[in-house]
Amino acid sequence: MTTPGKTSIGFIGLGVMGQSMARNLLKAGFPLTVHNRSRGKVEELVKDGARAAETPAELARAVAIVILCLPDTPDVEKVLFGPQGVAEGAHEDLVVVDTSSISATATIEFAARLKTHGVAMVDSPVSGGPKAAVDGTLSCMLGGDASVIAGCMPVLQTMGKTFVHLGPVGAGQLVKACNQLVIAATLMGASEAIALCRKYGVDPVKMREALLAGSARSFVLENHAKRILDQTLAPGFRAALMHKDMKLAMSAGRDAGVFMPATALGVQLFGALCNTGRDGLDSASLGLLVQELSGIRG
Amino acid sequence: MTTPGKTSIGFIGLGVMGQSMARNLLKAGFPLTVHNRSRGKVEELVKDGARAAETPAELARAVAIVILCLPDTPDVEKVLFGPQGVAEGAHEDLVVVDTSSISATATIEFAARLKTHGVAMVDSPVSGGPKAAVDGTLSCMLGGDASVIAGCMPVLQTMGKTFVHLGPVGAGQLVKACNQLVIAATLMGASEAIALCRKYGVDPVKMREALLAGSARSFVLENHAKRILDQTLAPGFRAALMHKDMKLAMSAGRDAGVFMPATALGVQLFGALCNTGRDGLDSASLGLLVQELSGIRG
Repeated sequence: MTTPGKTSIGFIGLGVMGQSMARNLLKAGFPLTVHNRSRGKVEELVKDGARAAETPAELARAVAIVILCLPDTPDVEKVLFGPQGVAEGAHEDLVVVDTSSISATATIEFAARLKTHGVAMVDSPVSGGPKAAVDGTLSCMLGGDASVIAGCMPVLQTMGKTFVHLGPVGAGQLVKACNQLVIAATLMGASEAIALCRKYGVDPVKMREALLAGSARSFVLENHAKRILDQTLAPGFRAALMHKDMKLAMSAGRDAGVFMPATALGVQLFGALCNTGRDGLDSASLGLLVQELSGIRG
Repeated sequence: MTTPGKTSIGFIGLGVMGQSMARNLLKAGFPLTVHNRSRGKVEELVKDGARAAETPAELARAVAIVILCLPDTPDVEKVLFGPQGVAEGAHEDLVVVDTSSISATATIEFAARLKTHGVAMVDSPVSGGPKAAVDGTLSCMLGGDASVIAGCMPVLQTMGKTFVHLGPVGAGQLVKACNQLVIAATLMGASEAIALCRKYGVDPVKMREALLAGSARSFVLENHAKRILDQTLAPGFRAALMHKDMKLAMSAGRDAGVFMPATALGVQLFGALCNTGRDGLDSASLGLLVQELSGIRG
C-alpha cells in the first residue's frame, strides 16, 4: 500500500538481498517501481503493489531515487550507462543510491559521469546478510555528500539499522571491502579450526560452542561455521561474490601498496572454491574445501 | 576469608590471568596456597589471605587440587616433573587442573606420567581475556574424565561462566589452539582493514563502527581493533604468547595433515612481530606491523 506524498523509488536488482530490501520499501509505503534482468522476481513484487519498468531508463524517468543492488562493477556500469540505462532517463534531482558491492575507484568514476547528467550518487553497500535484509537491520556503509545522504535517509531507514557516513563517494565501497576481507579472514580461521577438530576426533560442534563464549566469538563463527557444520550450503551469499569482493579488496590494497597477506590468501582460496565448481554455493563452503584438502571425507 | 569445609586449592602461576583467577578462588572462600617464580605476586595474594608455598611439591602436599596457569609447555613440564615439582608432592586423590595453553600431545603425555603417581589431570585452558578473568566469566575448554571434571566444577565455577567438556585429556588444549587460530585470523583481517582505510584517508574508527554493526562483527574487532586504533598496546595478551599458540596450532595441524594456510600465515606474522622487538607488547600490535609494512607512519 502506497502512502501519498512519499518519494517515488526505483529498485534495480532483485537478488537475495535486493528483493528483501525492495519489499521493505513497499511495506513502508514508498511508491515503488522495479526492474530486474529476469522477470520472475519482478512479478512477485508487482503482486505486492510495485510497478514494473521495462528498462532502467524508463524506471529512472518515473522516480526520484534509483536504488541499485547488483552483483558486480560491470553490472552497475551497464545499468547506469548502457543502452536504455539510468543515464538515458536522467532528470533534475535524480539520485542514485548504489547498495551493490563494487569497486571504489569505479564508483568515483560513475559518480563523476552521472554528475554530467545532473544526477547525484551515493554508495551504500550493506552488511548483515539475508536475514538482516529481511528484518531491515542492515549496516549501511555510506559514501557521498552529506546533504544528498540526508535526503535519502527516510528511504535508507527502511533497509538498515546502522548508518555510518564514511566520507566522499567511494568511501562506502572501500569500507565494504574491509568488511568482506575481515569476514573472509575469520572464515578461513573457522574453517581450519573445524578441520583440525575433525582430524583429532574432537566434536567441532562443541568446539564452536566453547569458542562462542570466549575471545574468538564472531558473527562468522555463529553463522558461517554453523552452515559448515550443518552442511547447509545453499546461498546465502555465493562464493563467487565473495571471490569478487576479495579481488576488489586486493586490488584496492595493491593500488595503494597496502600489506595484505591474509586478503591475498583469501583471493586464492575463494578462487580455488570457484575453480572447483562451488561458485554457486554459499561462501561458507570454504569450510568443505579446507576439509577436502585435509583429507577429510563427508 | 576461608570457608570451613571447602576443598583446599593450590595455584601455580600468577601472571595477568592467573592472579585474577586465584583472587576469585579466595573470594569464593577456598583455602588457597600459591606459588610463583617471582615473589611479588605471591605477597599480594598472601595479604589477601593466601598461604605461600616455596616449591610446587610443598604446595601439592598441602592441597587437594593444584591449578596451573603457566606460559608454555616446558614451564608446565618443569612445575610438574622438575626438582621439587608437583609429582614429588603427589598424594592420593590429588588432581591437577591445567589452565595454561600448551601442547595437546604433551598434555596427554603429562597426564599419563601423573597417573603413575596416582594423580588425575584435567586440561582447562581458558578464553575471554584479562577482563573475563577478573569477572570470573572465562570460557573453559575442558579435557579429561567426566567424573574428575565433575569434582572440580565448584572450583572452576569461580573462574568461568561457560564450560564445554570436549573429550579426553588434551581435547581442551586442541580446542584452545582452535580458539587462538581463529582470533589470529580475525586479527590479521582487522589489521589489514585498518591499514587499507588509513592509506585511502578513510577514518578507520568509523570503519570499525560500521563493521561492528554487520556480518564482520567479532570480539576481536571490538577489542583488539580498538587497541590498534588507540595504540594502547601494553599487554593484555603478549605477542610472544600468541606466537607460541600459533606454533602449537600449526604443529598440531602438521602432525595430522590439516590444510591450514591462514594459521601458517599467522605463525609467520606473529613471528615477525616478535622478531622486531614487539614480543612483550599486546598481540594487537600486529596492527602496527601491518601499517609499517604498508608504509604508514605513526
